[in-house]
Amino acid sequence: MRAVYPIATSTLLGLILLGPVSVGLGQKPNLDRTLRTADNFEPAIPRSDQDDVVATKLAKLKKETGRKPNILWLVVDDMGYGDPGCYGGGAAVGAATPNIDRLAREGLKLTSCYSQHTCTPTRSAILTGRLPRRTGLTRPILAGDKLTKNPWADEVSLARLLSDAGYFTMLTGKWHVGEPEGMRPHDIGFDEYYGYYPAQKEISQRFDSRRFPDLVNDPERMRAFEAIAPDNHLTHGFKGGRTEKLAQVQSLEDMGRAEKVLADFTIEKIKELAKGDKPFFIEHCFMKVHCDNFPNPDLGSLSAAKYFYKEAVAEVDLHVGEIIKALDEAGVLENTFVFFTSDNGPQMDGWPDAGYTPFRGAKGTTFEGGVRVPGIAYWKGMIEPGRESDDLFDLMDLFGVALNVGGVKHDTLPTDRYYDFIDQTSFLLHDEGHSQREAVYFWWGTELMACRMREYKVHLKVALPESTHMHIDYATIQDVGLAPWLFNLYIDPKEQMPVGHRRNAFLATVLGKLKQHAATFKKYPPKDVGL
Amino acid sequence: MRAVYPIATSTLLGLILLGPVSVGLGQKPNLDRTLRTADNFEPAIPRSDQDDVVATKLAKLKKETGRKPNILWLVVDDMGYGDPGCYGGGAAVGAATPNIDRLAREGLKLTSCYSQHTCTPTRSAILTGRLPRRTGLTRPILAGDKLTKNPWADEVSLARLLSDAGYFTMLTGKWHVGEPEGMRPHDIGFDEYYGYYPAQKEISQRFDSRRFPDLVNDPERMRAFEAIAPDNHLTHGFKGGRTEKLAQVQSLEDMGRAEKVLADFTIEKIKELAKGDKPFFIEHCFMKVHCDNFPNPDLGSLSAAKYFYKEAVAEVDLHVGEIIKALDEAGVLENTFVFFTSDNGPQMDGWPDAGYTPFRGAKGTTFEGGVRVPGIAYWKGMIEPGRESDDLFDLMDLFGVALNVGGVKHDTLPTDRYYDFIDQTSFLLHDEGHSQREAVYFWWGTELMACRMREYKVHLKVALPESTHMHIDYATIQDVGLAPWLFNLYIDPKEQMPVGHRRNAFLATVLGKLKQHAATFKKYPPKDVGL
Repeated sequence: MRAVYPIATSTLLGLILLGPVSVGLGQKPNLDRTLRTADNFEPAIPRSDQDDVVATKLAKLKKETGRKPNILWLVVDDMGYGDPGCYGGGAAVGAATPNIDRLAREGLKLTSCYSQHTCTPTRSAILTGRLPRRTGLTRPILAGDKLTKNPWADEVSLARLLSDAGYFTMLTGKWHVGEPEGMRPHDIGFDEYYGYYPAQKEISQRFDSRRFPDLVNDPERMRAFEAIAPDNHLTHGFKGGRTEKLAQVQSLEDMGRAEKVLADFTIEKIKELAKGDKPFFIEHCFMKVHCDNFPNPDLGSLSAAKYFYKEAVAEVDLHVGEIIKALDEAGVLENTFVFFTSDNGPQMDGWPDAGYTPFRGAKGTTFEGGVRVPGIAYWKGMIEPGRESDDLFDLMDLFGVALNVGGVKHDTLPTDRYYDFIDQTSFLLHDEGHSQREAVYFWWGTELMACRMREYKVHLKVALPESTHMHIDYATIQDVGLAPWLFNLYIDPKEQMPVGHRRNAFLATVLGKLKQHAATFKKYPPKDVGL
Repeated sequence: MRAVYPIATSTLLGLILLGPVSVGLGQKPNLDRTLRTADNFEPAIPRSDQDDVVATKLAKLKKETGRKPNILWLVVDDMGYGDPGCYGGGAAVGAATPNIDRLAREGLKLTSCYSQHTCTPTRSAILTGRLPRRTGLTRPILAGDKLTKNPWADEVSLARLLSDAGYFTMLTGKWHVGEPEGMRPHDIGFDEYYGYYPAQKEISQRFDSRRFPDLVNDPERMRAFEAIAPDNHLTHGFKGGRTEKLAQVQSLEDMGRAEKVLADFTIEKIKELAKGDKPFFIEHCFMKVHCDNFPNPDLGSLSAAKYFYKEAVAEVDLHVGEIIKALDEAGVLENTFVFFTSDNGPQMDGWPDAGYTPFRGAKGTTFEGGVRVPGIAYWKGMIEPGRESDDLFDLMDLFGVALNVGGVKHDTLPTDRYYDFIDQTSFLLHDEGHSQREAVYFWWGTELMACRMREYKVHLKVALPESTHMHIDYATIQDVGLAPWLFNLYIDPKEQMPVGHRRNAFLATVLGKLKQHAATFKKYPPKDVGL
């Protein structure tokens, strides 16, 4: 049973959660620094000085260039926090990432950047500015899923908002937020789509006889699979509905080559768009490094470790370098906001075709290993090189940054729904910017699992693996015991030793915050789309 | 029972280890790239081109300056691999380390730098170039330990060798390799010693009534403790034996201030020595960040996290900056080889007064968490800024680098004993240098536990904690099962998923290497000093 209002799912937790409120009903907890500017917007920490400086900086740039800035998101699939060199991996884990590291060195490296716990939730959240629990896109859409309604039908995507604001909008690569008509990128606001709908494994399994012999070598099962199989075409879609099915991925070699096909397309498009009169928003979604990875046979070995996962990391890094170079050569590097990230932690279930996180847990859990991801903001001339920040950033905040950069006012957003994003433009662009986000909420399906506030993280429920690395395919969702698990991530980054709720002055604030959060779901009821 | 020749401790392992030899007796395993240049020296990977380039570079510097280069080691106590920002920690774990990070950015950051598993073993190994199993200094010397003989009596320390080569040699700070006459720094070759013999906790426990009330508040136990108590004086010792007992640490505040006292001394000494006509070798050994840490009340809060451990990390970083600044201001920065490191992984048993490693295990184990440590080589003008390397480096190799830099020929070393160091000068100083070390061996007392070779690590025995964080005070030493635990650290940095001995072409080489290693103990029998 999944409760709609998760605060009520456990009597014990309910009591704990109600605790601070029964003491100081209606009082704002002291340590919460936020202000709510609209009933349906997530409250933010006010930093008006910082906002003003950055508004001036942006206005100056727009005046100089005579156009709105471009926006480029680079979203890797399932890359672990520890995979890039600049996050402690790279050559030390067998795959150097010089291009990603350079972005970090010349931009802002975020060390507390959070995704959702899996793919579809993150990808939908960053395009809607809303938590998956609100939109109904609460877990990956898998082969054979029949949704009861189109979650996109009444969502207003960032692509649509930016298109309306004069942008050319395009998504390249992996989509995974719905293949049926009405749910495709070019149906929900993007001017153009060029990529593959599903994750790599969902494409390659039909001809990967080494890993899936029971499917590949059994014609009857193969027929059953084909009835629900995700699309293995390279798809070229255009706003209005035109959809061209291009080459199918028909072998492991084809799969290995797919990434380069996508990078080449984005690069050509950048060259073309730089000459045009519209600013652009490109969301480039890598297929790699989601399992199962296959090396691109045309590129030769790229990594010291040789494992397919590592080859994939190195190839992604290569394309990151090429894409940035394309921006530079097209003369738009200084007019493009770039953000590099991953949609969630490493999918350890696919090990050894899996990444590295130094933290506890992995994709599929709301421990740090599942949700803390690389996050690098790069904008030549606009973001001071060499910045690092441990301030909180939720990938949904990219929605707010894009609206700001694109000049879309918040009052154009519908008021009948709740927005979880925060406009973090001034955090990212001010030379000494600080976050305006006070808390990050972690959901698993319809369950509210955890919350991070400052260096503390509180878990109400936890996803625990049944064996060392099976965090998705072989795990359970459990209520915590007597009290919420409270970790201080500064002294315990691996979430192993709870500091106990009685010892901590923050807990009442966090629980009060969670109660506010739950109240938004009462006022703005979430959608159920059958996932 | 502890066997002298550990290869024979387990019949099963013995068979496995003998396996490759029975197949190809006398054949050198293919994948071992080393050559043995002397019977009593650890074989090294030959890199004569690299050696030549660096020899020329060093000769040129010596000609320019007219003197031998200075050597400065900065050894932190129990700092975790993940504590400095440049290793993935810093502000992200609540204590920024801008000065350590700058050393890494402007020097060579090693990501596979290994210590011994605890304090005394590492500190003696780097000064003798020999494994603790050979010298007898196999574990920390604890209060009340009665050694059966002085392990230093027949050791030739680096301090002695460099003194003989014209250096002024000094050790500042923590010693912990013997307090009795004959074992003190100024007895074993250092011209001068200024510091505290034991670890912080061994000093502070006598007045830390909060943590040790059963000792502090019980006069009878306190008398018993005093009979074996480690020295709490600041000691100033001089070659020849003169030993001045200066102020005693008599309060937690005194303990908190100790670090600055030491840094100030090293800084004053650098100023003085820079004006003299001798090159210097200074081993600056921080007292912090070994538990129990107490903040320096004169410095105010230094860290975001506020925990005493974090304050200690930040204070160490502050002094690192001051010491480097002193070198610069004294005009000797370009003539001083600096190496920053830690003596072992974090002592998690003292948590929350403990550091952070992303790896499995901690101080006291031979998993990566216990032995992989920060290692930064910095030499303005001689080491190319921004280098990073995952090549193998054993802290014992610092002995070889110091001999090379100090112009001490290997043929001046005694030939009746085995040397485990490798001269890694050209690895550190060549702009594209590679390691000449093929394998790192891990011992725990008299037990040979594990070996790393390339990205593989083989465990014959493991130290396993009985509870989450008790790796020293509450752990067991266990034989592995059917086969050695073989981990590929590129795809499994956390040593959780053995790849199995049959799958790996390297295993025979590693086991052959271990057999060679064991043979050196037959030919050059180890000392037993009663530890």
